[in-house]
Amino acid sequence: MQETQRSADVLSEEGSNSAKRRIMSGMRPTGRLHIGHLFGALGQWAQFCKTDEAFFEVADLHALTTAFEHPEQIRHNVVELVLDWLAAGVDPARSAIYVQSHVPEISRLQVLLSMIVPVAWLQRVPTFKDQIEQLGGEIATYGFLGYPLMQLCDIAIVRANTVPVGKDQLSHLEFGREVVRRFNHLYGPTLVEPHGTLSEFPDVDGTDGRKMHKSYGNTIDIADDDRTTEKKVRSMVTDPQKIRRNDPGRPEICPVFSLHELVNGPRVPWIEEHCRSGALGCVDCKSELAERLNASLRPVRERRASLDAAQVDEILADGAQKVRAIAVETLADVQTAMKI
Amino acid sequence: MQETQRSADVLSEEGSNSAKRRIMSGMRPTGRLHIGHLFGALGQWAQFCKTDEAFFEVADLHALTTAFEHPEQIRHNVVELVLDWLAAGVDPARSAIYVQSHVPEISRLQVLLSMIVPVAWLQRVPTFKDQIEQLGGEIATYGFLGYPLMQLCDIAIVRANTVPVGKDQLSHLEFGREVVRRFNHLYGPTLVEPHGTLSEFPDVDGTDGRKMHKSYGNTIDIADDDRTTEKKVRSMVTDPQKIRRNDPGRPEICPVFSLHELVNGPRVPWIEEHCRSGALGCVDCKSELAERLNASLRPVRERRASLDAAQVDEILADGAQKVRAIAVETLADVQTAMKI
Repeated sequence: MQETQRSADVLSEEGSNSAKRRIMSGMRPTGRLHIGHLFGALGQWAQFCKTDEAFFEVADLHALTTAFEHPEQIRHNVVELVLDWLAAGVDPARSAIYVQSHVPEISRLQVLLSMIVPVAWLQRVPTFKDQIEQLGGEIATYGFLGYPLMQLCDIAIVRANTVPVGKDQLSHLEFGREVVRRFNHLYGPTLVEPHGTLSEFPDVDGTDGRKMHKSYGNTIDIADDDRTTEKKVRSMVTDPQKIRRNDPGRPEICPVFSLHELVNGPRVPWIEEHCRSGALGCVDCKSELAERLNASLRPVRERRASLDAAQVDEILADGAQKVRAIAVETLADVQTAMKI
Repeated sequence: MQETQRSADVLSEEGSNSAKRRIMSGMRPTGRLHIGHLFGALGQWAQFCKTDEAFFEVADLHALTTAFEHPEQIRHNVVELVLDWLAAGVDPARSAIYVQSHVPEISRLQVLLSMIVPVAWLQRVPTFKDQIEQLGGEIATYGFLGYPLMQLCDIAIVRANTVPVGKDQLSHLEFGREVVRRFNHLYGPTLVEPHGTLSEFPDVDGTDGRKMHKSYGNTIDIADDDRTTEKKVRSMVTDPQKIRRNDPGRPEICPVFSLHELVNGPRVPWIEEHCRSGALGCVDCKSELAERLNASLRPVRERRASLDAAQVDEILADGAQKVRAIAVETLADVQTAMKI
């Protein structure tokens, strides 16, 4: 455990402060992020940079578990993803932003930990069977089966004590904690058992009224320009019973209204009232939403546009260096504990 | 494929010779080797050093797949194993002798290849179920399930084209070849498909008449001294019907006779005749065997005694360097092919 101490202030400009949480989170580079991410996880991440030691990983190896047949996009997506993070206020000076495959110690830790993880533990993680049902048996690979183990290695290699989790990831965290306990029981206290911190955000409605999700093609992206946002908002579905301006609308089932709630706070009661009465037509309502969305996204988009791929490369190189300073130590401790 | 070319002469003092086989083999560091190894695989290995590019791996990570609960001995066993190899004539100047865990690229390759290996391929490798039946469900870990994949990575990382295999390992080789073909099909020709070269040696009888095997406690070890060898030979079982000197014996069921065949060539017909007639008593027969064994083991044991752990460390450091020169290239090619 003294190892944690030793590397505790790598990211802390104020010097060692053991009360600080060390947070690790990550995303797969599967494409550009949308406003659901911006108003959800990324807002929380930007906050972590201010209050905690924070590690943010671009999980490119995880992306391979499901995209192994078409990896062409992964490298491009890494850059786009990091641009979105930076645009959203994730601060590379107060966190480590890095690519999973740039930290060899993660794979090495995975192979070592694989020796103590019963196959049955992995098979009973609910997401394993769920995903195979959804995506087909093709993805039932050895790597895919080991997904929760790789997630644990991402966390354990930086000795994070805190992990933001949504409800659907709780089983992965519980699996990871079990593996850490088994390791420490077999070889002595070495790894840090991570705790979860709630990271459940309300779903954001997509342009078609379903949950906003890349795979539905119903997103408004952080990186969209004003015109694209306007076009997408204009094409949004609304209450099907409100056909003409004077028809009364039902805001509670309208995705346009739900986006107003996200970005147009003080005006929401007025909009609700005039939608219900019929006085506010959908065209005007959408125009106002597009304007508000673009206004609130403007600083984010401007920050994004001011950055280039070369800066991202630099940030990722710097992040990998920060992480590896800790990762090399963690791996050495694990090898010592395992007498390897 | 040009990569193979580029690194082809790393081990060849005579310069590049693409017709040369590149052979990879390994052993798990589970304890001292016995004369069965000496007259079997190690003789072949010593030969490979003269005719081929040879890579010999101490498979310490593999040892963890079954010994994860008691790894204390692994590090000590690494040194003992390499001393046995060197004593048997494996030439570190004409091969690469290295420890698996000193080559991080093997684990990294394993995580990458895990993405394209169906779990079902691993589950159907016959040794998986056999071993679980023999050793119990405790060893049904994720690492143990991945054993044949790790073996392939050992082979693929050095781009070996030839692997010595006994019949019980044929299914592993076939699995490995399938994985290579799948990789090359998905991402373009990158990995070398290894071929097997027969490496089937007759079993050597142990002191109790069963096959000589460490786990039976019936071995005569390369590292034993003369007195220990004598004592072990004296305690050997013989034909139970031959109780006194003049009783006729049956050499074909006597393990003492089978060891004579191994080390006492020209004298074997005389021994057979006088055992059958009863003229040769077991005590004299064993004395002669002990003498012959010690005589033929003497140069091997002297070579072993002349080496120390520091030399082994140097040889292993040198071996890791040779291997990593190739491994880093192989991994880079794999990452390029996978667009990671």
